[in-house]
Amino acid sequence: MVSINAGPQPDPTARNTEVPTSELAASGEQRSTSKRPGGRSARVQEQVLTATLALLTEREIDTISVADIAARANVAETTVYRRWGSRTGVVSEAVMKMTAANNPPPRTGSLAEDLMTLAKQVAMLIGRPEVRRLLRAVYALSGDPEIDEARTAFYAARFAIARDIVEQAQQRNEIGTDIDSDDVIESLVAPMYFRVLVSGREVTEEFVERCVRDTLLLFAGK
Amino acid sequence: MVSINAGPQPDPTARNTEVPTSELAASGEQRSTSKRPGGRSARVQEQVLTATLALLTEREIDTISVADIAARANVAETTVYRRWGSRTGVVSEAVMKMTAANNPPPRTGSLAEDLMTLAKQVAMLIGRPEVRRLLRAVYALSGDPEIDEARTAFYAARFAIARDIVEQAQQRNEIGTDIDSDDVIESLVAPMYFRVLVSGREVTEEFVERCVRDTLLLFAGK
Repeated sequence: MVSINAGPQPDPTARNTEVPTSELAASGEQRSTSKRPGGRSARVQEQVLTATLALLTEREIDTISVADIAARANVAETTVYRRWGSRTGVVSEAVMKMTAANNPPPRTGSLAEDLMTLAKQVAMLIGRPEVRRLLRAVYALSGDPEIDEARTAFYAARFAIARDIVEQAQQRNEIGTDIDSDDVIESLVAPMYFRVLVSGREVTEEFVERCVRDTLLLFAGK
Repeated sequence: MVSINAGPQPDPTARNTEVPTSELAASGEQRSTSKRPGGRSARVQEQVLTATLALLTEREIDTISVADIAARANVAETTVYRRWGSRTGVVSEAVMKMTAANNPPPRTGSLAEDLMTLAKQVAMLIGRPEVRRLLRAVYALSGDPEIDEARTAFYAARFAIARDIVEQAQQRNEIGTDIDSDDVIESLVAPMYFRVLVSGREVTEEFVERCVRDTLLLFAGK
């Protein structure tokens, strides 16, 4: 649940980044003022994602329109639609960007510690009001192929982090090589998601620690 | 996740049930044709809940209005609003009623078998399109105090079933008396909910069996 960049993310330090024609066309309203299309495109993207996160901390996603996001970011609505396709698209990327920035993938050298770090990151993440809003919005819109695809890509990226943790543990002989890393992360985080999304029980620090202990017992036999 | 009747449920066999004045007023459109208010009230309720389930199997909840439900059930809209308060209210009760009818609480005399029965019921339940639609709708509307209260009551009722299973197992000395039954059911069902609501991985029979085995290992040490 950490450190995901889904989709292409322009590198703000890359000055010679090529920008697709469609991208230039999409940002026509600022085109004439820009000397470096790559830098401008990255800057516009940053403005839009920052504006989206700011709006998400203020109110429910259903009350936020692409027009609101564009106004807050000081860009044209068409820029948002052409780059992200929909409100959900931009909201998803904004949350993933925030997640990536705040949650470096754990590399402690110990499976138990890596899982604890990951579990705490997930607990913090899904406890944030704007992330809960995103989750709810995504579930509400589920059934829409575009949304379902975005959701699948999002979790695929998250599971990739866990795969890395498990593979390292396998190389250290901490966990069997027959273990499926998706099963490990599922065991670790499912109870936390269940509390946040379904039962409403509180995700306490003690509970997070129990999730880690249970996962270790089930998959590493310790 | 089985056999729940949340809220008062008129007993169709009770011929002398008193009907509150407000209920009579609410169903004014059928009042003059009814000789037995209790029977009529139960019949109207049955019509509305059946109509709601039928609509839920046909289309997304967002496209279903109270007017649609009332029309399909052949009752006045006011009847629905006065008895259930909102679309979500009637949809929740319809799904709970369906759940209760199809899922008798397991009483096999064995914790392992009770948990397996319960797990299979939950897997079947959350695999149903109309239940997924309800879950999505409830999460989308989360934050509304009335919806959150309904959700909390719904899961409290479901956890009560699990409490019964665990208490019986404790009386048979199959599981420690210090075990919290809410923790047991959470461990059992959280991975299934995670697959359905979050990751999109398939809930296979083998997976359901693993959920039961893991829960037994964690809580009954076997």
